[in-house]
Amino acid sequence: MLESFIPVATDSDFPLENLPWGVWEWREPGSSAPSIHVGVALGEHCVSATTLQAAGYLQDLPGAPSGVFSHGRLNEFMGSGQPAWRAARQQLQRLLASGEGAVRDDLELRQRAIHPASDVRMLLPAEVGDYTDFYASRQHATNVGVMFRGAANALQPNWLHLPVGYHGRSSSIVPSGVHVHRPRGQLLPAGAAAPVFGPSAQVDFELEVAAVMGPGNPLGCPIPLAEAWSHVFGLVLLNDWSARDIQKWEYVPLGPFNGKNWATQISPWVVTLDALEPFRTALPPQTEPEVLPYLREEAPYRVTYDVDLAVDIVPAVPHDSGSGSGRAATVTRSNLKNLYWSFAQMVAHHTAGGCSLRPGDLLGSGTISGDTPGSRGCLLELTWAGRDELELRAERRQGEELEGGAAAEGPRAGAGGVGEEAGGGAGAGGELLGRRRYLEDGDTVVLRGWCGGGGGKRIGFGRCEGKLLPCR
Amino acid sequence: MLESFIPVATDSDFPLENLPWGVWEWREPGSSAPSIHVGVALGEHCVSATTLQAAGYLQDLPGAPSGVFSHGRLNEFMGSGQPAWRAARQQLQRLLASGEGAVRDDLELRQRAIHPASDVRMLLPAEVGDYTDFYASRQHATNVGVMFRGAANALQPNWLHLPVGYHGRSSSIVPSGVHVHRPRGQLLPAGAAAPVFGPSAQVDFELEVAAVMGPGNPLGCPIPLAEAWSHVFGLVLLNDWSARDIQKWEYVPLGPFNGKNWATQISPWVVTLDALEPFRTALPPQTEPEVLPYLREEAPYRVTYDVDLAVDIVPAVPHDSGSGSGRAATVTRSNLKNLYWSFAQMVAHHTAGGCSLRPGDLLGSGTISGDTPGSRGCLLELTWAGRDELELRAERRQGEELEGGAAAEGPRAGAGGVGEEAGGGAGAGGELLGRRRYLEDGDTVVLRGWCGGGGGKRIGFGRCEGKLLPCR
Repeated sequence: MLESFIPVATDSDFPLENLPWGVWEWREPGSSAPSIHVGVALGEHCVSATTLQAAGYLQDLPGAPSGVFSHGRLNEFMGSGQPAWRAARQQLQRLLASGEGAVRDDLELRQRAIHPASDVRMLLPAEVGDYTDFYASRQHATNVGVMFRGAANALQPNWLHLPVGYHGRSSSIVPSGVHVHRPRGQLLPAGAAAPVFGPSAQVDFELEVAAVMGPGNPLGCPIPLAEAWSHVFGLVLLNDWSARDIQKWEYVPLGPFNGKNWATQISPWVVTLDALEPFRTALPPQTEPEVLPYLREEAPYRVTYDVDLAVDIVPAVPHDSGSGSGRAATVTRSNLKNLYWSFAQMVAHHTAGGCSLRPGDLLGSGTISGDTPGSRGCLLELTWAGRDELELRAERRQGEELEGGAAAEGPRAGAGGVGEEAGGGAGAGGELLGRRRYLEDGDTVVLRGWCGGGGGKRIGFGRCEGKLLPCR
Repeated sequence: MLESFIPVATDSDFPLENLPWGVWEWREPGSSAPSIHVGVALGEHCVSATTLQAAGYLQDLPGAPSGVFSHGRLNEFMGSGQPAWRAARQQLQRLLASGEGAVRDDLELRQRAIHPASDVRMLLPAEVGDYTDFYASRQHATNVGVMFRGAANALQPNWLHLPVGYHGRSSSIVPSGVHVHRPRGQLLPAGAAAPVFGPSAQVDFELEVAAVMGPGNPLGCPIPLAEAWSHVFGLVLLNDWSARDIQKWEYVPLGPFNGKNWATQISPWVVTLDALEPFRTALPPQTEPEVLPYLREEAPYRVTYDVDLAVDIVPAVPHDSGSGSGRAATVTRSNLKNLYWSFAQMVAHHTAGGCSLRPGDLLGSGTISGDTPGSRGCLLELTWAGRDELELRAERRQGEELEGGAAAEGPRAGAGGVGEEAGGGAGAGGELLGRRRYLEDGDTVVLRGWCGGGGGKRIGFGRCEGKLLPCR
């Protein structure tokens, strides 16, 4: 195991083996204006590649332009390709190792380059040129199909042949921590002949993971499946906030629009595929039917990753100061393995006709639901379109995780954290915090993701967290 | 009428009353590298606002940052708002007037600021953050509905209540003049049980007009209808290249994806609303049903513009050098007035739930079809999904328009032009150039748009022109 001179808790999402990339704003003590940094997370600190590169480190990154960390965004680095990513990762792991004195012993540089996470404001990791959202979980597509078309016609005829996707809205992508407002829109009330315009009564989250694109392709030049993973820079958590009533009325025949384009939230740290490598696992079989050759590859390409996922809802506390200090109920536990289609297949399909992907583009997985009721990735499925009430139950009181020491399946609350770790299955016993069919104003939704833990090092995604405010 | 010291033909799309905005690459004589300019079209010349502003002109544009024309793109100017747009327009009309000597008599400045159109390469007028495509022509939606669902269910229940739209792909937007390749994709052959992967056999154009956004709105802050037009910088022609067979198999339930995202082409000159002002006209009635209040406004907001539209197909000539010197057949004639929903309504609806629009974003109208067979805006409708063959007929031999002098309804071929003007209704007599159900490799598609002509000045859009090349 790697050790750094920067202290990292054993249950941290961000050990030296992870080093996820992000962008943040930091105000140097004594400075009047904040500066923007790109770099990596390590324990409870952010390590600025911007500062380290300006100080002479991180100079030899094959394929990367000089000053690649000076742009206040990661697009240029993402576009530089795997050799640059690997070189930067290796150099940072060496520079930050406990036995290496170059940075460790340069106190002036440490102060400028290593920022406490509590002192920074995380931004989007890249400018997102285009955002695509897929529909790649078979169980999610089946559940939605059963609800709206019945069990006999649950999956559409195309679903098992191609990763169904649609173009989302990049202007409404926000990082974790931003509050969102309940949208207004056109809705068709039950039994009504004509629509009305008003606040959505069916605001939902969607538990997703998104691939952040690396180099991509010029228009007209598809990326073959065998090369597709090399175009993925890394993964983030994604909450595709959805207004189900708006969506239901508008989406025929051209797909979701105002039901989705009011907010899409992502976790700020991009976990690289190199960090996820120990958690590689095989895709589910795709033999009934066999997929077409452009989407069909043998090992080692039939790859996904074993990433545990969870969603917490933190109801507003009366007289809450807005800091989100309420208790959390874990409402679903899923895993990236539940996807039928891999991100590599999404890349190959997306570009098959020539569509261009650019560095920083996002490819969302769609809601990731598993086979069990407790692993459904959105309230639409958890409450079966509002038919059932979902109980929000807190599993432990704040602080219990420290005493019990059994926090392997979730991150610490962290500096800005909103909730304690909830153990056990979703919906199990514990104090009742509330009941939901859809989200209520004041609810905070927290997505979490992590690999490993327990005995070995944990590779975590941090949090994707947002609070639903009333209509503006 | 305004007169410039730069000669402008009477039938030019670009008189001094127009001054559409664009971005181009120009190589100064003796210079090794091209430079990028933003500015306006005037007759057969491009007038560089970049050069004029650096020379001390165009300084006082209210709301615009200094050096707004120095970025090689128009986004910053688009975001500056109407007062800046109007001030720039007025200052340019004064500077370029025949009686004004400041630029006219400064030969060195003229050489650097006024570039022959034949010497430049047009680029996209803005970086397009997001591209949305609507479906706002009632006749188009009806025709498609009749084809796929029968006359009784032609319009979906939501269509008359809201401008149906979907998110398109901004990475595949290309300017006029770029060639595109026939895409490959998944298709379900007629009668087949499983899809195949191969070249699309149903490549189509779509005749559209797009609004280019001005200032826009922050996330969460809708633009009310009464303010919506002030957020539209201007209009361009848009060809939404479509692969119908790919689209048909993939689009349920989330909308078009690979059927559309391989190329979307726009004309390079953005015609401002101030230039279109003399051609303002009323929207069609929206009283059955009455639209909801957020989309319903009295005059003066119920506005559209009387813009004539046409599409030419220029078949490849055997042994064609690639210059597109073949003869043109006009296959459709339509008008922007045929839209049921206005761009202002699209803006108000798009932002109603809080979605952010940014300067340079595109809002496509969707295919603009009129009531007559000759005014249908795509081959899908013109051939009724490939049932009928469309005859491509050239109306006049090249040069006849000069002799006849009756070119009021179309632009001159221009320096890089591909076809002569075709008169009369689409599909009328004349030499048979070919027959089409869908486009063939080598076909060039030319969209044209113009207001007025005949007695008064013509305000034109220029051309949106692209050639379909074989699969790569």
